[in-house]
Amino acid sequence: MTSKHLIEYENANSRVRAVYDDIKQTRQVADVNNFWKCLAAHPDNLERTWQSLKHIMAPGALDALTKELIYVAVSVTNNCTYCIASHTASARKAGMTDEMFGELQAVIGMANETNRLATGYRVPVDDAFLQ
Amino acid sequence: MTSKHLIEYENANSRVRAVYDDIKQTRQVADVNNFWKCLAAHPDNLERTWQSLKHIMAPGALDALTKELIYVAVSVTNNCTYCIASHTASARKAGMTDEMFGELQAVIGMANETNRLATGYRVPVDDAFLQ
Amino acid sequence: MTSKHLIEYENANSRVRAVYDDIKQTRQVADVNNFWKCLAAHPDNLERTWQSLKHIMAPGALDALTKELIYVAVSVTNNCTYCIASHTASARKAGMTDEMFGELQAVIGMANETNRLATGYRVPVDDAFLQ
Amino acid sequence: MTSKHLIEYENANSRVRAVYDDIKQTRQVADVNNFWKCLAAHPDNLERTWQSLKHIMAPGALDALTKELIYVAVSVTNNCTYCIASHTASARKAGMTDEMFGELQAVIGMANETNRLATGYRVPVDDAFLQ
Amino acid sequence: MTSKHLIEYENANSRVRAVYDDIKQTRQVADVNNFWKCLAAHPDNLERTWQSLKHIMAPGALDALTKELIYVAVSVTNNCTYCIASHTASARKAGMTDEMFGELQAVIGMANETNRLATGYRVPVDDAFLQ
Amino acid sequence: MTSKHLIEYENANSRVRAVYDDIKQTRQVADVNNFWKCLAAHPDNLERTWQSLKHIMAPGALDALTKELIYVAVSVTNNCTYCIASHTASARKAGMTDEMFGELQAVIGMANETNRLATGYRVPVDDAFLQ
Repeated sequence: MTSKHLIEYENANSRVRAVYDDIKQTRQVADVNNFWKCLAAHPDNLERTWQSLKHIMAPGALDALTKELIYVAVSVTNNCTYCIASHTASARKAGMTDEMFGELQAVIGMANETNRLATGYRVPVDDAFLQ
Repeated sequence: MTSKHLIEYENANSRVRAVYDDIKQTRQVADVNNFWKCLAAHPDNLERTWQSLKHIMAPGALDALTKELIYVAVSVTNNCTYCIASHTASARKAGMTDEMFGELQAVIGMANETNRLATGYRVPVDDAFLQ
Repeated sequence: MTSKHLIEYENANSRVRAVYDDIKQTRQVADVNNFWKCLAAHPDNLERTWQSLKHIMAPGALDALTKELIYVAVSVTNNCTYCIASHTASARKAGMTDEMFGELQAVIGMANETNRLATGYRVPVDDAFLQ
Repeated sequence: MTSKHLIEYENANSRVRAVYDDIKQTRQVADVNNFWKCLAAHPDNLERTWQSLKHIMAPGALDALTKELIYVAVSVTNNCTYCIASHTASARKAGMTDEMFGELQAVIGMANETNRLATGYRVPVDDAFLQ
Repeated sequence: MTSKHLIEYENANSRVRAVYDDIKQTRQVADVNNFWKCLAAHPDNLERTWQSLKHIMAPGALDALTKELIYVAVSVTNNCTYCIASHTASARKAGMTDEMFGELQAVIGMANETNRLATGYRVPVDDAFLQ
Repeated sequence: MTSKHLIEYENANSRVRAVYDDIKQTRQVADVNNFWKCLAAHPDNLERTWQSLKHIMAPGALDALTKELIYVAVSVTNNCTYCIASHTASARKAGMTDEMFGELQAVIGMANETNRLATGYRVPVDDAFLQ
């Protein structure tokens, strides 16, 4: 993958530019990340993914930081290098301190460990959890 | 796996009982979950897992609810039936509302989707994320 | 999935029967597991899978028990209910004691935990490991 | 991730140094791996992870080599670059030959293949495995 | 999870009913699957997921059957019981024969095996694939 | 991993050369990929993997392109860098257009998202899918 696969604003068509503009406006950033510049090869994928992400990651019953922490937890468990890098950065921007980062990693690690212990021991689900 | 594999308090040795007592005391519950009753077959595993979990899941820089949401996110991504059931219940106990549950699932789903898009498109990590 | 999807010896064609006979002979068992009775719907898949499995799981530089422990470790990490059940049974048959089972689960759990810690902390690989 | 994230002994506090000393003593090595130098940012994570790892990976009912093989199997299945590199090295140090390495990879590959076949065919668990 | 968590048409609000109507119309079915009846607890999730799915799964450069086969491959690799069941059924409806099913499982199994071999052997990417 | 681990034709024994010759003949290529040059360290693994792959990926009830798309879907979901690179290239060679690539990624992303939604919501399998 070289930079030729990244669609920069100046080379983008109007449909792609409209998404880039909305991302820049929503996030108050000067340029969009490589993720969007790759998806832009298929405007359908770009538009749909941005619309969903914008909607889902907006603060609601869960605040922005909590959502970013969840995003990092999934990305680490899936081992997605790009998303770990970008969402760790987003989480810090949303207020994640070094101490929170340490606790986040501890919970992710612990959950992965007990997931496997529960699976390996074939623990039957408690009746109380079935309701 | 039948109930014969679950070690109940009355059949447990003193080492196992000490852990059960600490779990019941810490969580203010009348009985421990099946997870612990299975691990009890190997007191080393029981003690070490409980000590780690107790320490990690205690409120710190992240509150108890946030930690449970992260736990659910990992468990769903790993597809661990037992941990999804038990930690969804724990999250509700820690204050997760129906609305929070819906947003949690949306973020988990979205993160899993974009993890694969970033991977499939082989998006190069932005220089800004490498620092 | 009901039992109608399982191809029993009496309903199998000669190609499938030859594989069943070889499995029974090799493993010294009276009947083959459901896994083979499902694959039998596609004799190509049945033959190829059995030939590979028979070859790979035979004692070599690694003994049969070690191979079964590795099999369980992969199956737990992939969360495959069927393979956890069948290969835990095979491991016991090959000599896995209760104590070994407990240590196996502990190593699986620990490896899953540190895999995520290494990934989440984005630990750079040591030069010593790159050679 | 640059080397500024790695906490070297000379910059470590006494709590971190105590863990580093124990790792070097236990493993008879001159320096600790990058994994520990990253975790050191959060002494709780460093201490707890090392204590668990030290305990779990010590020879018991399973010998050191077998435990490392299991560790590699999990790490490959989780696709953890760092842990594959470090534990493949540890396995070699514990006596893994080239031939064992080849058989290890074959079993890991086979288990991953049959995990998916069992899942995709939705093979019902044999009654014999449920006891 | 009991049926009380499934929102039937007669108990649904107008926003949910509109989605149900569109699903039934698009797929020419008398009722929607449990997946939608669960998501309906959060109309945002229901609407967004259906809109994306409807758009993505419509025949385009790839036909409907090919898309279903890809869906099954992902679901098997993720070990998602529900999606394996529902998309295997959709694939059959879209024309998947028994023979195709057998080949699909073979490719899924083989890909999972070679994914791990490439990872475990740490095969360096060929220059030809980097362009 | 350096190039010293790659076994070139001129350094290969006759058993390895026979496989290389068959790969080159079957695929009409001048040289084999790094994957095979790594596996060649263990001729058993090389022969068995190539025999299975050759058989499974040959056009049958599913054509070559469809099989490559399925291969990419599994590789992306498993996050296997090498296989994503090599099989995306194979898919293009078999006729995958840019538009098909975009739809492939969309389906992979969507399937990963709904897999987690089905799992997180613990959607009960419809009776219609159990037959």
